[in-house]
Amino acid sequence: MTPDTVEKTPLTLLGLGAMGTALARTWLAAGHPLTVWNRTPARAEALAADGAEVADSAAAAVAANTLVVVCLLDDASVEEVLAGADLTGRDLVNLTTGTPAQARARARWAQERGARYLDGGIMAVPPMIGVPESGGYVFYSGPEELFERHRETLAVPTGTRYVGEDAGFAALHDVALLSAMYGMFAGASHAFALIRKEDIDPASLAPLLADWIVAMAPAVHHTAEQLRSGDYTQGVVSNLAMQVAGIPTFLNTAEQQGVSPELLGPYFELMRRRLAEGSGEEDVTGVIDLLVR
Amino acid sequence: MTPDTVEKTPLTLLGLGAMGTALARTWLAAGHPLTVWNRTPARAEALAADGAEVADSAAAAVAANTLVVVCLLDDASVEEVLAGADLTGRDLVNLTTGTPAQARARARWAQERGARYLDGGIMAVPPMIGVPESGGYVFYSGPEELFERHRETLAVPTGTRYVGEDAGFAALHDVALLSAMYGMFAGASHAFALIRKEDIDPASLAPLLADWIVAMAPAVHHTAEQLRSGDYTQGVVSNLAMQVAGIPTFLNTAEQQGVSPELLGPYFELMRRRLAEGSGEEDVTGVIDLLVR
Repeated sequence: MTPDTVEKTPLTLLGLGAMGTALARTWLAAGHPLTVWNRTPARAEALAADGAEVADSAAAAVAANTLVVVCLLDDASVEEVLAGADLTGRDLVNLTTGTPAQARARARWAQERGARYLDGGIMAVPPMIGVPESGGYVFYSGPEELFERHRETLAVPTGTRYVGEDAGFAALHDVALLSAMYGMFAGASHAFALIRKEDIDPASLAPLLADWIVAMAPAVHHTAEQLRSGDYTQGVVSNLAMQVAGIPTFLNTAEQQGVSPELLGPYFELMRRRLAEGSGEEDVTGVIDLLVR
Repeated sequence: MTPDTVEKTPLTLLGLGAMGTALARTWLAAGHPLTVWNRTPARAEALAADGAEVADSAAAAVAANTLVVVCLLDDASVEEVLAGADLTGRDLVNLTTGTPAQARARARWAQERGARYLDGGIMAVPPMIGVPESGGYVFYSGPEELFERHRETLAVPTGTRYVGEDAGFAALHDVALLSAMYGMFAGASHAFALIRKEDIDPASLAPLLADWIVAMAPAVHHTAEQLRSGDYTQGVVSNLAMQVAGIPTFLNTAEQQGVSPELLGPYFELMRRRLAEGSGEEDVTGVIDLLVR
């Protein structure tokens, strides 16, 4: 064993919201010397009892360690909180939620101030932190050697997935997955709305819905292969013409059940537009190209 | 063993599209005497080689057996094909895709003609028929004793799930699950669109997407519990106010990546409307109530 694995890497954490606090507890529990700072000190004090060093200012917290993790409300808070800190020689890991463009700009901003920069996108809610079996993880992007250097420390709270040198890729993957989740939530909302006035227990529909979604999720592998090859007729089971022919059943059912079609209508509209382009033999994959300007 | 389990129930199948043909093959393979009819005879002739009896007319096919399964293009085809048939004493099982209202009307129509009626909603594509491990199944609704009488025969091609006496419930469950699937497809389409212009392989995003959707699907159980209790603040992890605060990150990322927000925008709009009603401490479940008129 090298000293590195015996003496745990000390680090600083700025931001002790629900997520920051959950992260902090896992590092403290794993024996990492941890310096914390939060705008409102009460949350920091609770961690002091668990062994955290509480800094008087963000600048002092940054000065305390080379590895500085930031988990704040938004990108503007990151700029504001770090404004008075000397970032020279710091390894800044930004777990604050933001867009790819914000991550890229923040990476340049950090580099101009002498820091190295990793961006992270957290695919977990606070109760999943420190619970390996929860399946939570964080996307990381930026210099790979920087990620590798801190991989062990970063892996203490939850899983890690490195997705590339481009600082914006962690946020992009984060937003892509959460977007897909909101689409799934929208579809499930429509499904629950359809039975809302019927004598059907939502708890009897839920397992059917969950199992069906899980069974259909692997369809994205097929979509990816079609996007790679550019041949959207590849391995089609139910083609666009057939699927568009089924749309009235969905819209009429919504109408009969007194449910607004506003969550499903836009997807059906794109399916129809793609069909009108002469793509009846294709899969629904062509809808993706209609979304991209 | 009773003769019933030794001598397989004979049945009639009307409609030999891709789905009807797949169903027919499984009943023939399992030893059920099968009479078939199809508007264009070529498909019936292919099945004759496998032992099917080919009827000259739909009326003759209906006359041949008590159990009559119908799998046609749409509800209008069912009315048209069965117009000249004597349904007296027949057990009509309608697997034709349609709305709950169509199923209920068809049930009354069949009963007026002296038949008993089960409606079915097929949760499978033809390649899944006869493949138990595919996870496919058919929702059935109508008289439970009628379903029980034919359960074994109906379970030959794929799984069965009985969902109630109301003839419309099979179609309603079918449409609900497929609606949820289209929502998930819409979300995944948005996700793939976000990376379309980046140096990211869709096949590297696909497993992340699939795993994330599978991990998030159980959230519908939580939604169902909230709908049952009427308390949408029950067990909330990330409340509506927090989730609405995150919407600009999704919309700005779409804008940055040149992706139209049309598939996700309507769900975000409903989240904002619900928040404006003072539901910030709730989960997103309230969106469902905004859909129902």
